[in-house]
This record gives sequence, C-alpha cells and structure tokens, in this order.
Amino acid sequence: MKILFDKTEVLGHGECYIAVDGQYISYIGREKPDGDFDRVINTKDKLVCPGLYNCHTHSAMQFLRGYGEDLPLDRWLNEKIFPAEDRLTPDMVYKSSSFAIAEMIKNGICSFSDMYYFCDKTAEAVGETGIKANISRSIVSFAPAADHSKDNRFLESVQLYKDYHNAFEGRLKVDFSLHAEYTNVESMARFCAEYTEDKHIAYQIHLSETEKEHNECIARHGVTPTGFFEKTGILNNNVSFAHCVWITEDDMDILKKYNSTVVHNPASNLKLGSGVMPLSKILKHSINVALGTDSSASNNTLDILKEIYLAAILQKGIDRDPSSIKAEEIVKLATVNGAISQNRNDCGELMVGKKADIIMLDLDRVNNIPMFSPIYTLVYSVNSSDVCFNMVDGRVLYENGEYTTLDIDKIKHEMKTLRKSFFA
Amino acid sequence: MKILFDKTEVLGHGECYIAVDGQYISYIGREKPDGDFDRVINTKDKLVCPGLYNCHTHSAMQFLRGYGEDLPLDRWLNEKIFPAEDRLTPDMVYKSSSFAIAEMIKNGICSFSDMYYFCDKTAEAVGETGIKANISRSIVSFAPAADHSKDNRFLESVQLYKDYHNAFEGRLKVDFSLHAEYTNVESMARFCAEYTEDKHIAYQIHLSETEKEHNECIARHGVTPTGFFEKTGILNNNVSFAHCVWITEDDMDILKKYNSTVVHNPASNLKLGSGVMPLSKILKHSINVALGTDSSASNNTLDILKEIYLAAILQKGIDRDPSSIKAEEIVKLATVNGAISQNRNDCGELMVGKKADIIMLDLDRVNNIPMFSPIYTLVYSVNSSDVCFNMVDGRVLYENGEYTTLDIDKIKHEMKTLRKSFFA
Repeated sequence: MKILFDKTEVLGHGECYIAVDGQYISYIGREKPDGDFDRVINTKDKLVCPGLYNCHTHSAMQFLRGYGEDLPLDRWLNEKIFPAEDRLTPDMVYKSSSFAIAEMIKNGICSFSDMYYFCDKTAEAVGETGIKANISRSIVSFAPAADHSKDNRFLESVQLYKDYHNAFEGRLKVDFSLHAEYTNVESMARFCAEYTEDKHIAYQIHLSETEKEHNECIARHGVTPTGFFEKTGILNNNVSFAHCVWITEDDMDILKKYNSTVVHNPASNLKLGSGVMPLSKILKHSINVALGTDSSASNNTLDILKEIYLAAILQKGIDRDPSSIKAEEIVKLATVNGAISQNRNDCGELMVGKKADIIMLDLDRVNNIPMFSPIYTLVYSVNSSDVCFNMVDGRVLYENGEYTTLDIDKIKHEMKTLRKSFFA
Repeated sequence: MKILFDKTEVLGHGECYIAVDGQYISYIGREKPDGDFDRVINTKDKLVCPGLYNCHTHSAMQFLRGYGEDLPLDRWLNEKIFPAEDRLTPDMVYKSSSFAIAEMIKNGICSFSDMYYFCDKTAEAVGETGIKANISRSIVSFAPAADHSKDNRFLESVQLYKDYHNAFEGRLKVDFSLHAEYTNVESMARFCAEYTEDKHIAYQIHLSETEKEHNECIARHGVTPTGFFEKTGILNNNVSFAHCVWITEDDMDILKKYNSTVVHNPASNLKLGSGVMPLSKILKHSINVALGTDSSASNNTLDILKEIYLAAILQKGIDRDPSSIKAEEIVKLATVNGAISQNRNDCGELMVGKKADIIMLDLDRVNNIPMFSPIYTLVYSVNSSDVCFNMVDGRVLYENGEYTTLDIDKIKHEMKTLRKSFFA
C-alpha cells in the first residue's frame, strides 16, 4: 500500500511531504512526489513525528493501576503487588497486556520493552494489535544450582525465544531478562551469559533502582550491581538497564565501554521514592539513554510524552540550570535511542528506507498555540491526548480516536470486570 | 436555575446526587432530592470533583508559550521575555488573558490568581468568560521616593481595586502585588503595608524563587526575603507567596505565624532551574499551601492536574519515601487551600451552601481504568483532557469540548495571528 502524508510540519525536516510504500518510508521532501497513492492523509494543523519507544514496562501489571497507593515501598510490594501477582493467570496477562498496548498506541508509542511472565500471552497481544515489542521472561534465582539449564524460568526464556523471536515480520523480538542483581545468584548470571554468547540476544535488567539495592550488592559482592553484571559476562550482550538511579561514575564508564543502554523512568523513580537518575552525567558519558514508563502500577500511565516532559524539566531543576538538557536531546531518548536499545537498526527515525513508524499530533489544540518551534511544542506543551494518529510498520493502528486492530470497548469492559472479580 | 447532577461518584462523598440552586450547592446526598430541576446532568462514568485553583500565573504571557526555550535564565529573561514584554499592548493583554482563561476552563480550573499589568484588560476577560480570579498589578520600585503614593504602579493598583474589586458578583477580586523583594525598595513595601492596613486587601508576591534572589536579599538587608517582608508590615495582610523554593525553617515559622499562603509551582521551578520547593517541610509547619502553574512561558501549560501529579511524585522522589505525601493532601492544595489564599470563604469544597464550582472527569478513558479509589485516579492517572465539564458559580462554562462563554476558534485564530505579527 502506498500512502502520502500531505505537506505539513515534520519534526526535524520542516514543511515536507512523506510517502510510505508498504512498511517503509519511501520519500521525505518539500516537493510533492510523483506516482499514485492508495491514500493521501490529511495533515492540516498536524505535526508529524517519529513513533515513540517505551523501553521499560511490565504491561501485564496494567490491572494494578492505582492499587495500594501512598504506601511505603515494602508494604506496597508485600501487602499489595506480590500477593496480587501470585494469583495472576495467563488469561489475565493477555487481557492486561492488550489493554496496556491500547493505552500505548493511543499515546503514540510504536514499540515497547517488556519484562514479565506468561509472556506468550503478551506475544499474542503484540501479534494481534500491530505494535512492536521486545518481550522477555524475567529470570530470578535465589540459590546456586548444579545445573541452571534446568531452571524453569530459563527454559521458558529459551522456549519463548524459539517460538516468537522475530515473529510477526520482525515486529516482535524476544530478549532475555535477569530480573536484577538482588534477585539472582552469580552462577545463574554467568550461566545465562555463556548460553547467549554469540547468539546476539538482547537483555533487559533492573539496575541500581534503589539505594538499598545498590548498597546491599556492594556489601554482598564487593562491587556495584554494574560491576556484578560485568564480572558475569552479561555485558557482552546488548543490555538495557532500567532505572540506574544510583549508578556511579565508574559504573557509567563500564556501561559506556560495553555500549549498554540506560533506560530512564523518571515518573516511576519519583513515585516509588527511589530518587532521580543522574541523566546529565550519564549523557556526558555518551551512554545510549532511552525512556520508559515502568508499569501502570507505579506511574500510573503508559505515557512517553509525559516522561519526555518530566525528564526534561526534572533534570533542569536538579541541575539548577534551564539549559542543562535540550529538547532535541530528550526527543532522541524516546525515538532513535529506543530503537538502538531494541536492536532495531531500521527504526526510530523519519528517514527514507526506515520503517514507517509515524505519529501525528494535533497542533490546533489550545495547549499547542502559539507554536515557535515544533520541537519545543512537542517537549514542553503537548498532551498525550493530542496524538491523533499512530502508524507502525506502515500500518495505521490508531486514527482520530479509533483503533483499527482492537476492540477498545470490549477491552475496557474486560478490565473493569477483571478488577471487580479479582479484588472481590 | 436548578440543576441536578445524577447519582455518581463524588470525590470525598461516595455515590451521591448533587443539586445546584443558582450559584450555590443546595444538596449532596445518596437519596434523590425532591423538587423540579431545570436540567438533570448525565453523569455516567463521570467523577464529580470541586473546581481547581491556579494560585499563581501571569495569564497575559500566554502568547510567549514556547518562546526562547532551553536558555540560561538570564538570557531567557534579557534576550527574550523582557524585550517582548516591553512591546506588549493592552489589546494583547486582553487576547492573551482570554486565551489563558480558555485553557484554564478546559483544564477544570474555576479560579486563578494573576500578577501583571494592563490588568483592566484581564479583568474584562474574566468578566466575559465567567471564570473567577484574583488579579493584581505588580508593583516594582528600584529607588526610595519621597512620596510613594505618586508611584504610577501604586496608583494603578488603587484604581484597579476601586474599579473591579468584587466585580461580576464577586467573581473578580483585586489584590495588591509587590513583585518581589529584589524588585522593590523597603520604603515602598512599608508604604503599601500602611496603605492597605485594615482594608482586608490580599497580596500576591514572588518569594525566594531562586537561590540567588534569596542570598542577595540576606546580603542586602541582613534578613531573608520572608524576614524583609515581615519587617515592612506586609504580612499583616493575607499574602500569597509564590515559589518559596529557598525559604528556611525560620521563614516557615514566620509564614505560619501570619497565616500566609505558600504557592507551589513545581513545573515552573524545575523548568527554570530554580529547584524544588520543600513541600513536606512546609506542610509540617501547617502552612496553607496552594498550587500554581506560573505562566505558559515557563511551564508551558496552565494545567493544575499536571501540577497535582507533579507535586505528589516529585516530593515522594525527593523525600525518598512514596508515603511522604498522600493524595488527599495534594488535592487540598488545588481546591480548599486555593480558596483560602484568595479570601474566598464560600468556595473550594463540595459542600451545601458553598458556591457551585464543579468539574467532571471522564472515568471511561483508557488511562483511568481500572479505578480502585477516585482520589488515586484523580491524582495519579487523570489527564487534563479527561475534564469534560466545568461549572463556576453554578454556571456551565465548558461541556464536552464546547465553551459556553467564549468563541474558542476566534481566540485561537487571534493568538496565531498575534504570534506571526508580533514576532515577524
């Protein structure tokens, strides 16, 4: 299918036309391209931007949004979240993931990175809805074993990879995941590193989210969580480390050396009282930084435009310098850097030959007027409800409030029913 | 006019009916009230909440939204904001204020506090649009004068008060304003304090917004800005102090002693690199705290629901404790505490006998599902685009995207034209 976006403001390009041929962007330019198009998209008062990346979430936790607020972290986890998760079923993971994906599509997200379990159900939801994702089955291991290859979670990871890696024309990728240092023994991390060696498997790992976790690792292993993972060999893979609130300058040197990605989750880190990730310092180390929402249980929305805004103003405030972070840098975190973290070389930018992951924002909304520069409007003024169009791999998933691949009324009803029956 | 809100979830009351008679709430209860109603409002899937207060803004700066981003503070002010403001006309103040009010109405705000100039134009816009406001003409004075009563800004304040205080059936109040300590001489502050003594005039003042301002005051006067204003006698009035990022524990004791209000502007303070106001400490001093957006030039939206969310998660993050601020406390900042700061005893709460300032939020939006408790949904999940209804003093100003008192297409067009011509 050939689609033409009528001439309009295109982020980073000025006033342009964009043509899409199948899954790919085939033209960007000021002159109207030749040829016939199956569809010409009305772009009046719209800003065209690349699709956004949510590089850390647990989509199946969607049903826990707003459950057990304002509690100390240990009570929230032990009295609320863990007991609820213990009762989770594959069907609930499917429904929650589908609902999380609906929220992400509406908010202009083209791809997400996910750590959880019953992941085949999340894979199903990704397949049906048309979004992209890197999903992973979190491995936890609290005791050394003679043979980690018999570990159920490891075996599930292997099976998930066989069943789904590069499924749905490459929209779905399967990563490995070690949940964190504090939830794994060193022998399991070493075993995984050996297993994945030369297989080009990416990893998703929680790292130095809380001060307690960071310091207890030093007490336990004599090194920081970053040092721990370096020792195990895991860093030879493409690893995305979520949170990194407490990493040191030495940790940053290590992460840069191995080209790891740091995934910044500003809302979740504030809301759970973890602290503020040192974004400016991490960027000074030229580390690839992406953005994540974490789950709806700790955010409470899957809204990367909110994280873009928050990451920008929070860092200016902490640095006490309104010029310490530029709008252009922040937008990279949510686009091209996200694609890098997901091992997606053909995504993340509006460029001929790249996958057509294109969103449109309504510039005629009250909050977007006046506009001086599209990048400032995008970072500082836009509301996620201004997203009026979301195309992934050349396929329109959302347009003017309507979904093309999912029955939103059915999904909303299922979530309301689930909340009532599960917490009856 | 008698209006009935059909039974629905009412914040702080559970499932209730609300009846409105003229400007006032006449009934809140679980049983359907007797009597005839001119209108019954459909509340299906709606959360009814009190109208929100924006207690610090400069609405006439609306046309500067997004102008000169990511610059150091002194360059932003001296190269961008001050030169633009120098060219401001009364007509531009009218158009910008009208547009700012349109944004506030859409975002569920029932009343705002404003400091600027050409204030009769802002008064006009308040009169026409049906919103409430406390407006003030900022006084600045850089040299002592033999007779401050001849100061133009002081005379404009006096005139504004005579012309507009309690205008529009009390919707509009006129406050006095000393811009800040660093923009005023002590004799002017003393003169104003004497003039307003026993007149029950409220004040709006910037206080300890930046560390520089705070420390330079100590160097200049030997006291903090709070101490400076205490010395002048200004604190005997009802004063709302905006920002207070750098106030000390001693300052807090003073502000509590005089029942002053602190207006927290979390987004603006972060974005301008001023820092983070110590909200938890200030609340521990039992000081009345309200919320403000500051202007669109430093925020970039007039969205109190965003400030509610930000105030909550920011303080949890800074305190490193997710239980340090509770949702119930934060909502008070944006409602009843705002009314207190504005000398409005008959507003700020859903209570029989109070003014009918009522908003509704759409709970059927993806981001608000599931709901465990309305207060958590309001603070952590809601998006300002979920506001679907805004009633001020019993009059519907906004409903399902439509304004009843202003021509939004005309106003948007005027702002776009103004931006083009002014910055041509």
